[in-house]
Amino acid sequence: MHLSPVWNEGGEGRVKIDVHTHILPKRVPRFAERFGYGGFIEVQHKAGCNARMVYDDGRFFREVGDNCWDPKRRVEECDAQGVATQVLSTVPVMFNYWAKGRDTLEVARFLNDHLAGVVAQHPKRFLGLATVPLQDAELATLELQRVVKDLKLSGVQIGTHFNGRSLDDASLFPFYAEAERLGAALFVHPWEMLGKERMDRYWLPWLIGMPTETALAIAHFIFGGVFEKFPKLRVAFAHGGGSFASVYGRMEHGFSARPDLVATQNPVNPKKYLGHFFVDSIVHAPDLLRHCLKVFGADKILLGSDYPFPLGELRPGEMIQSMSDLSEVEKTGMLAGNARVWLGLP
Amino acid sequence: MHLSPVWNEGGEGRVKIDVHTHILPKRVPRFAERFGYGGFIEVQHKAGCNARMVYDDGRFFREVGDNCWDPKRRVEECDAQGVATQVLSTVPVMFNYWAKGRDTLEVARFLNDHLAGVVAQHPKRFLGLATVPLQDAELATLELQRVVKDLKLSGVQIGTHFNGRSLDDASLFPFYAEAERLGAALFVHPWEMLGKERMDRYWLPWLIGMPTETALAIAHFIFGGVFEKFPKLRVAFAHGGGSFASVYGRMEHGFSARPDLVATQNPVNPKKYLGHFFVDSIVHAPDLLRHCLKVFGADKILLGSDYPFPLGELRPGEMIQSMSDLSEVEKTGMLAGNARVWLGLP
Repeated sequence: MHLSPVWNEGGEGRVKIDVHTHILPKRVPRFAERFGYGGFIEVQHKAGCNARMVYDDGRFFREVGDNCWDPKRRVEECDAQGVATQVLSTVPVMFNYWAKGRDTLEVARFLNDHLAGVVAQHPKRFLGLATVPLQDAELATLELQRVVKDLKLSGVQIGTHFNGRSLDDASLFPFYAEAERLGAALFVHPWEMLGKERMDRYWLPWLIGMPTETALAIAHFIFGGVFEKFPKLRVAFAHGGGSFASVYGRMEHGFSARPDLVATQNPVNPKKYLGHFFVDSIVHAPDLLRHCLKVFGADKILLGSDYPFPLGELRPGEMIQSMSDLSEVEKTGMLAGNARVWLGLP
Repeated sequence: MHLSPVWNEGGEGRVKIDVHTHILPKRVPRFAERFGYGGFIEVQHKAGCNARMVYDDGRFFREVGDNCWDPKRRVEECDAQGVATQVLSTVPVMFNYWAKGRDTLEVARFLNDHLAGVVAQHPKRFLGLATVPLQDAELATLELQRVVKDLKLSGVQIGTHFNGRSLDDASLFPFYAEAERLGAALFVHPWEMLGKERMDRYWLPWLIGMPTETALAIAHFIFGGVFEKFPKLRVAFAHGGGSFASVYGRMEHGFSARPDLVATQNPVNPKKYLGHFFVDSIVHAPDLLRHCLKVFGADKILLGSDYPFPLGELRPGEMIQSMSDLSEVEKTGMLAGNARVWLGLP
C-alpha cells in the first residue's frame, strides 16, 4: 500500500483533493428503448469485476473495472493513495449532447441523482460535478439550479463543444450567468475529438485530439469574451489546459498582429486571462508541470488524476509530491487548497 | 534601423541564420490553364509593392508585400535585422499535393528553379529548401535528387500530411531513405489544417490548427517508426514543434499505458526521440522557449521567423537575444550554429 508522505503529515499538507475523477452508475437504463432511437451507452457486466461500455448498436467503447462504479472500492483506493476527497463527474461519452434536449436532460438527471447519492453516502470523501444538456441552454440552466440547490453538488462538467458548436456560443451565456450567480464550479473536459480522420492510429484522438479540444475551449472562452462577460465564473480545464500551454504565445501574437481576424468579439489581450482560470495537473511530465506553473500560476493548478482510467496519473499527486523544486505552499495549494477555492469550499 | 548586439559582435556570435522564411516568384504561371483544371494559386500584382495571392477560382488567399518575392528587399531587411542568411522555402499553399503528381512536379520544378536562382544570386545570404510532389514518392525522390545534386539546395520542405495521409505512410519511406543518404535537411511545415469546421473564428486554424498539425507530424515520425528507420535523417519541425511540447508527457504515458493501441508500429518509448530532432524558435513567449529548450535540447532549437508574414517573429532572433538567462553558447547555437548542423553546412 502506497502511503504518501503528505498524507502522513499533519495540518493542511496531508490532504489531497483529486478534482478529475470519473464515475458511472453500476446499472444504466437502456435509453434507446425508452427514447425510441439509439446512440446511447450501455454497461454490460461480465464475470468478475469488469464491465464493457458499449454503444446500443453493439460498438465497443471501453472496458471498465468496478472502481468505475463501486464507491467502496474507490474509498479503498483513495485510502491507499492518500486521496482525501475525489470530485466525481460522469464519463464524457455520457454527455449525449447529440440527442434531443429533453432526453439528454433525463439521462443527466439519472446520472446526477446517482452521483449525488454517492456523495451523500460518503460526504467527506466525495464531491460531485453534474452533467447538463448543453445543447438546450434553458434545460441546462434548470438542471444546474437543481443540482446546486437541491442536490448540493459543487458545479458542472461540460464538454469542449456541443454538436460542433463552440463554448462561446451565445446560447450558453444565460447558463454561464447562472453558474456565476450560483457560485458553481465549471469543469471543461474534452470529448468528441476533432480531426479523427487524421488520427486513425496510435490512440491519437486521446493523445493529441483531447489536448487540442481543450486548447480550443480556452481560446473560445478568451476570444469569445466568456471570461470577460462572466469574470466571477470559476472555470477549470482538464489535462493541464491541453495544448494551450504551447500555443498561448502564438495566440497572443496573433491577437496583436491580426486583430481584424482575432479580436472580433473581445478587444482584450488574451494575456489578461493567464492566471484567471484553473487547469488540472494531468500532464505526466515534471517539466511540463513546471511550465504550467509559469503559464497559469501556482494557485491555479488543481490535482487531477483521471481516475480510474489508465491514461491518468495512476498514483494521484505523486508527481507533484516528487518535485523537490516546488515549495510546500505550492504543493499544498496544488494538492488541495486551490481546489477549495475553485469549488467554493469554506 | 535595428542593429542587433549579436550582429555587431565579432566571431561566431554575430551570425543569425533564419531557417524559416517563405518566398514566392514574382510571376507565377497560370497553372490551371496549363493543366486544364483549377485549384492553383495565382499572384495578382497591385499598384505599389503589394500583390494578392488568389485561388484560380477567384477566392482570396493572402495579401503579400514585395519582400515576399524581391531578393533585394529581403537583403535590405536582413541587413536591418542582423540576419546573415535566410533559408528560403515556398509558401505551403504552393505544395499542391492534391493535384496530379506530374503536374505538382512541374509546379515544384518551377518553384525550385526560381528558388535556386535567388540563392545563386546571393549565395552568402540565402540557402534554399525545395518543394516536392509528396503524393507521388517516386517523383518526389527524383526531384529531391535533382534539387540537391544539380541545384545545390539544402533540402526539402514538406507539409504535415498529403491528401489526409500521414507522414508515416509507407509510400514515403524510399523518399526518406534518399534524403538520409543525400544528407538533405527536412523541414516539416503545417498546412491544410485539420478540424477547420471547428475553427471558423479568431484565426484559429493558424493559432491552434497549425500547432496541432505539427504535433501530429512529430507523433507520426515517432510512433510510425520514421525516426527509428532513418536515424541519420535530420528533421526540423516548424513553430517550436507546435503543440508537441505540451503533449509529450501524455504521449509517453499513453505509450506505456496502452502499448496495444500506441506501440503498433514502433516498440520504442517516445522519450528516446526527445533531443533527436530540431524545432524552430517561433513560439512568441520566452517561457515557452525555455520550456522548448528543456524538451528538445538547446542544441536542437533553430532561429526561425516565418518572414515575411505577420504571424512570425517580426525582428528575427530578438526574443532569443533578449533572454538573459540563456548562456552565450546556447544563444549562438540557436541563432546559427544549430542551423549549420541541421543543414549539413561545414
